[in-house]
Amino acid sequence: MKTRVGVVGLGYWGPNLVRNVLASQQFDLTAVVDLDPARLESVVRPSPAVRAASTMRTVLNDVDAVIIATPPETHAALVREALEAGKHVMVEKPLATDGPTAWGLVDLAEARGLILAVDHTFLYTGSVEYLRGAIERGELGQLYGLHSVRVNLGLYQRFASVYMDLASHDISIFNHLLGERPSHVAAISLRLLNESFSDVAYLTLRYPSGIHGHAHVSWLSPVKVRQLTISGSRKMAMWDDVEPSEKVRIYDKGVDFIGDADARAASFVSYRAGDMHAPSIDTREALAKVIDAFAQAIGEGEPMRCNAQEGAAIVDVFEAVERSIAAGGAFVQVNSGRHAVNPV
Amino acid sequence: MKTRVGVVGLGYWGPNLVRNVLASQQFDLTAVVDLDPARLESVVRPSPAVRAASTMRTVLNDVDAVIIATPPETHAALVREALEAGKHVMVEKPLATDGPTAWGLVDLAEARGLILAVDHTFLYTGSVEYLRGAIERGELGQLYGLHSVRVNLGLYQRFASVYMDLASHDISIFNHLLGERPSHVAAISLRLLNESFSDVAYLTLRYPSGIHGHAHVSWLSPVKVRQLTISGSRKMAMWDDVEPSEKVRIYDKGVDFIGDADARAASFVSYRAGDMHAPSIDTREALAKVIDAFAQAIGEGEPMRCNAQEGAAIVDVFEAVERSIAAGGAFVQVNSGRHAVNPV
Amino acid sequence: MKTRVGVVGLGYWGPNLVRNVLASQQFDLTAVVDLDPARLESVVRPSPAVRAASTMRTVLNDVDAVIIATPPETHAALVREALEAGKHVMVEKPLATDGPTAWGLVDLAEARGLILAVDHTFLYTGSVEYLRGAIERGELGQLYGLHSVRVNLGLYQRFASVYMDLASHDISIFNHLLGERPSHVAAISLRLLNESFSDVAYLTLRYPSGIHGHAHVSWLSPVKVRQLTISGSRKMAMWDDVEPSEKVRIYDKGVDFIGDADARAASFVSYRAGDMHAPSIDTREALAKVIDAFAQAIGEGEPMRCNAQEGAAIVDVFEAVERSIAAGGAFVQVNSGRHAVNPV
Amino acid sequence: MKTRVGVVGLGYWGPNLVRNVLASQQFDLTAVVDLDPARLESVVRPSPAVRAASTMRTVLNDVDAVIIATPPETHAALVREALEAGKHVMVEKPLATDGPTAWGLVDLAEARGLILAVDHTFLYTGSVEYLRGAIERGELGQLYGLHSVRVNLGLYQRFASVYMDLASHDISIFNHLLGERPSHVAAISLRLLNESFSDVAYLTLRYPSGIHGHAHVSWLSPVKVRQLTISGSRKMAMWDDVEPSEKVRIYDKGVDFIGDADARAASFVSYRAGDMHAPSIDTREALAKVIDAFAQAIGEGEPMRCNAQEGAAIVDVFEAVERSIAAGGAFVQVNSGRHAVNPV
Repeated sequence: MKTRVGVVGLGYWGPNLVRNVLASQQFDLTAVVDLDPARLESVVRPSPAVRAASTMRTVLNDVDAVIIATPPETHAALVREALEAGKHVMVEKPLATDGPTAWGLVDLAEARGLILAVDHTFLYTGSVEYLRGAIERGELGQLYGLHSVRVNLGLYQRFASVYMDLASHDISIFNHLLGERPSHVAAISLRLLNESFSDVAYLTLRYPSGIHGHAHVSWLSPVKVRQLTISGSRKMAMWDDVEPSEKVRIYDKGVDFIGDADARAASFVSYRAGDMHAPSIDTREALAKVIDAFAQAIGEGEPMRCNAQEGAAIVDVFEAVERSIAAGGAFVQVNSGRHAVNPV
Repeated sequence: MKTRVGVVGLGYWGPNLVRNVLASQQFDLTAVVDLDPARLESVVRPSPAVRAASTMRTVLNDVDAVIIATPPETHAALVREALEAGKHVMVEKPLATDGPTAWGLVDLAEARGLILAVDHTFLYTGSVEYLRGAIERGELGQLYGLHSVRVNLGLYQRFASVYMDLASHDISIFNHLLGERPSHVAAISLRLLNESFSDVAYLTLRYPSGIHGHAHVSWLSPVKVRQLTISGSRKMAMWDDVEPSEKVRIYDKGVDFIGDADARAASFVSYRAGDMHAPSIDTREALAKVIDAFAQAIGEGEPMRCNAQEGAAIVDVFEAVERSIAAGGAFVQVNSGRHAVNPV
Repeated sequence: MKTRVGVVGLGYWGPNLVRNVLASQQFDLTAVVDLDPARLESVVRPSPAVRAASTMRTVLNDVDAVIIATPPETHAALVREALEAGKHVMVEKPLATDGPTAWGLVDLAEARGLILAVDHTFLYTGSVEYLRGAIERGELGQLYGLHSVRVNLGLYQRFASVYMDLASHDISIFNHLLGERPSHVAAISLRLLNESFSDVAYLTLRYPSGIHGHAHVSWLSPVKVRQLTISGSRKMAMWDDVEPSEKVRIYDKGVDFIGDADARAASFVSYRAGDMHAPSIDTREALAKVIDAFAQAIGEGEPMRCNAQEGAAIVDVFEAVERSIAAGGAFVQVNSGRHAVNPV
Repeated sequence: MKTRVGVVGLGYWGPNLVRNVLASQQFDLTAVVDLDPARLESVVRPSPAVRAASTMRTVLNDVDAVIIATPPETHAALVREALEAGKHVMVEKPLATDGPTAWGLVDLAEARGLILAVDHTFLYTGSVEYLRGAIERGELGQLYGLHSVRVNLGLYQRFASVYMDLASHDISIFNHLLGERPSHVAAISLRLLNESFSDVAYLTLRYPSGIHGHAHVSWLSPVKVRQLTISGSRKMAMWDDVEPSEKVRIYDKGVDFIGDADARAASFVSYRAGDMHAPSIDTREALAKVIDAFAQAIGEGEPMRCNAQEGAAIVDVFEAVERSIAAGGAFVQVNSGRHAVNPV
C-alpha cells in the first residue's frame, strides 16, 4: 500500500519532486497543485490518474502527505494547513521566514504525531555522506574549520537574499557534519545590483565546540564554484561539487607540533604532505534519497537528516544573520525561536 | 655610474633581492648585511667584491641606497637610521608596525628628499598591470567588487598573523587597482593552531567609492589558492596566479537590467555569457621590475607604485583590522596615522 | 502540415531521437518500431497517438520519413526497404558495413529523389560549427594537422570495433572541417580484452591537401578524454568536449620562420605565444539541430552536413582501415566503393 | 675521496649537470669543457678551482669520469675517447646514432671494466619509481598497454627529429616499466614545418609479452602535455607530469568479465569504477639522483637503471623506427646492433 502524496508548487524545483515521486516505489502521486494550468497539464497529460488543482485545500482529502515547493513566504501557512488536516509534510527550505513561526510548526507536528521535514537536499548527497562518515571515524582528526564557497552568476530567486537562497545549504551542511548548531554568527551582506536584496554575503558561524564555519555566497561570480574545505589535525578534505568525478578529495596533509606546549606557543610546527585519496562516492540522485527518506519516516518513523527541528534551527540562524548585518558585521548570538512568543 | 646598494637581511626573501640586484644594470651590489656568516658567505664567495657585515651601520658609507629585508619589528628603526644617514631605502612590507611610526618615516624621507619605497612586489606583476589597465580603459565597466582567496598550508612567518603576512598583498593590490584607500574594515581572525597569532582571517574593505574588497587568507588549506575575482557591470575578470599560463581571464559576462528603475527594484535582470579572453601578459619577474623601478625613482624621480605613502596607508589598515577584530568583526573606520602623535 | 516520421529502434540512442522528434515543430511522430514491448510502451504511454509496431514494414504507410537507430548490420536492408517504399531516411552511422552497399543506397536515394542522411551528430555541435568557420575565415592560417583523442572506459557497442564506434566521429569531423576526404589511411588496432574486436586503435588519415588527421580511440582509458587539437600556421585551436564551458580555445600561438628558404631548411624558427580566446559557442543540443536539418532537407531540399555521400565515404575509409591493419599498419589507399560491383 | 669528474658541453642541459655535480657529496667537479668561453666563465667564476678547456682531451688527465652533454652526432667519438683513456662515462641520450656503434661502445666499456651510462633522467623521477613499484607489486594486475603523449610548442633541437628528442624518453620509460625491450615498432612521422626533420610522430612498440606501448610526440601543440596512461586488468594509472602536485593517480577502475570464456567472446563485461589514489611521490630532482647513481656505480658497482645496454637498445629501436617510416608505417622487427658489423 503506497503512501498517497501531493506535490504543491510546480515552479523551478517542483518538476524534480514530481519526477522522483513518480519513480518512487513507496509513493503514489495522487495530486499536483499550481496556479498555472500549463504546469499542471505537463504532469497530468502523461499521468492522467493524477488529480490537478489550483489550491492545496481541494486535494487534501486525496493524500496522506504533501510536498510543498511554493515561494518561501507561503510555506508556513501551507504547512500549518496540511498539518492541521493530519497530513505528513515535506517543505522546501526555509521552513518559515521567522524562528517562532518555524518552531510553532515543529510543535504542531509533534503534537499531532506527524512527520514534518525540510528538503535540505545536500544532506543526502554521497559527498556529504562520505564526509560525515570520515569525521565520525576520526579520519580528519580534530576539526579546525570549514570553509565554503558557493558562487555563480545568477539571481535565481527574486525577492530573496543570496544568503537565504545559497547559504542555507552551507548552514545545513555545517550543522550536519559537525552535529551541532552555531552559537554565534557574523555576517556581511553586500547589495550591489539591488537596493533591497543582498547579492554577495560572507557568513562566519561559531559553534559551541569552538569550530568555525565560513560561507561565501554570491550571485556575481563569472565562474561557478561549489567548494567546501575542511581542515583537521590529521587530514584535510575538499569537496568540489563542480568536478564531474572525484568530487571529494582527502589530503593526508596537516601540521604537527614539534616539542611541548612552549613549542606550540612558539609556532614550532612542521608541515606534512602525504597521499591524496578520492573515494568512490554514492552517485545516486540526492533528491531520490530524500524522497525515500521521507517515505521511511512516514512508514517506519525513521528520523530524517533534514527534520523540522533542523529546519527551524536554520531559520534561527538567519534571524541572527540579519541582526549581525544590522550590527555592522559583528558576531551576535543565535537565539532559538523555540518557545518564544510568535510575534506575528 | 651605477647606484651602490646594500641588501640588509639574507633570510627568506633576501637572496631573491641579491639575485635581482646583481642582474640589474643600474645597481652595483656593494654590501650585504646579516647576522649569519654562512648566509653572507653564500653571497661573497661567488662575488668577492661585495662587502659583508653584521650590522647595517658599518656599511652605510659604502652605499647610496639600502634594501631592507629583516624581520618586521626591526623595519622602522633600520629605515630611520638609513634615512638619517642620507640613503634611499626600499623595505619589505610592512613599513612599520604602527601607523604613526610609518607616517613619521614618510615625513622624514620627504624632508630629506630621499626615496622611501615598500616592496609590494605584486603591484609589478604582469597580471596586476593588465588588470589595472583593463579597469582604467573601462573594459570591466562599473566595478562591483573584488574578492581574493590567498590560502595554502604553511606558516612561513613566525610571530606574525596570517593577515599581516598574506593580506598585505591583497590590500596593496586592491588599493592599486581601485586607486583609492579603504575607509572602513571588518575583520574576523581565527587562531586555530596557536593562541597568539591568527592563522585564518577574513577581511572586508569598504572604499569611499562604495566598492568592497574581500580577502580570505589562511595557512590551513590543503591546496594552494591564489585567486582574485573582479566583478564589473560590463565584464568580469579572474586572476589565478597558480595557473602556469593564462593567469588572467576576462569573461564577457554580466548582468543587464531590463526596463527602468522599477524593473531594477523588481530584479528583472538578464544574464549575459559571452567569450572568455586570456590576454598574453608580461611574464618578466616582478621583483626585477621592482628593482628597476627603485633605480628609476632614485635616478629620475619617477614615482613608484609602492611608495612610502602607500606602505604607510596599509599599516593604517592593519590598525583598523585589529580594532575590528576586537569589536567582534564589525566594520570600523580606517584612521590615518599621518600627523597623529606617535604613541611610542 | 508536419512531416510524419517513424523512429525505428529504441535502444541506446533511439529515446534521444524520440525526444527530439517530439520537441520538433516540423515533425509529427506517428510511429515507433522495436522488438521490445516495454520500450514501445515507454513511448506510447505518454503519447498515445503514436503507433507502435515490431517491424518497420507495418508502419511504412503511416510515415513520410523514418529515422533508423537499429544495430549496424541491419542498417542497409532497412534503409533500402524504406527508400523503395518512397520514404526519406536518416540512419545512424554507419550507413552500411561495406562501401559498395553504401554507395548503392546513395544511388537508390538519388534515383528516387529522396533524402538519405546519416546521423553524424557532432557536425551540428556549436564547437564544430565554430571551428569550421574559423578555418574558412583563415583564422588558423595554413593547417598543419588535426589530432583527436577520444578515449574512455567502456564498451558501449558489442560486436563492433572501437574504431567503428568512436573513430567514425573523428573521420566525419575531419572531413567536414577540411572539406575533403582522405586519400590514404594507416591504422593500428589492438585487441586487448577480446580476440574478435579492437578496443584501442590509432588511425592516421592523409588528405589530398597534404594535411594529416590522427585519431586515438580507446575503450580502456581510466579517464574520459574528448580533445581535438588543430595546428595552423597562424593560430592553434583546441576543442575539449569534456569541459563544461569554454570548450573551444583559440591560441594565438605558432611558429614563424626567420629569413628565407635556407633558414627554413636550417630550422631557424621563432615561437609566438599570444592571447588565448575562448569564444561563446552555440550550446543548443546538436541532435535537435540534426532533426531540424533533416526536416529542412525534406521540405526545402537544403543539403545536410551529414548527407549520404559523406556517410558512404566514411564507410570507404573503414574498408581502408581494415586493409591497413592487415598490412601491419602501413598506409593504404582509400578506394571509393561508388560504382564498384557490390560483392554481396 | 671524491671522484673527480669533468662535464663536457655546457649548452642547454650542461648547466644542470654542473649544478648537480657541484651539489653532490660524491663528486668533485674538476673540469668543464666547451667551445664558448662565456659558458666556461659562467662556471669557473664562482668556482675558480674548476679547470676550463675547449677540448675534452686536454682535461682527461684531471678526471676519473666524464659526463658528456654535447650534440648527439659527437657522442660516439667522445665516449670512445674517454673510455680508451680509462675514464667512466655518462653521456646524454642517444648513446650513438646507429646501433652497431652504440653496441661497440658497450663492448668497449665492458672490456675495460668501466661504467658507461646514458642519462635517461626520467627513470629516476619519483613518478617512474612509483609506477614501476606498483607494476612489480601487481597493483595494476595484468598490463594491457601504455599510452604516452609528450607534446608542446617548440623545436628545442635543431637537426634532429622529434622522435629522437622526445620519444627517447617514452621508449626508456616503457622498457624500464615493462622490464623488456620491444620486438616490433610501427612509426609514422610527419614533417610539417621542415622538409628534413619530423615534427610530429606516432610510435607503437610491441613487446614480447604482447603488451603495446604508444607514444605521440609533437613540437606543434598549443599546450604542453606530458601524460602516460597505463591500463591494467586490476587498476589503471595516469602520470601527468605537468600537474604541480598529484602527478601520479591510480584509478581503481577496470573491466571484469562476466561468466566463462564464451562470455569473454561475447564481450559480456562489466565496468568497475572505484576510488582514485594519488600517492605521495619522491620529489627530489631526478638529475640529482642520476648523478648519485653514477657515483655509486663507479664506487660500488651498483648497476644503473640507464646503463649502456639500455641506451644501446634504444638506439636499436630508432633504427627500426626509421625502417618502419620507410615502409609506410607498418610494423617492422627491432634488430639488435649487438655484434652486427658496424657499417661505418
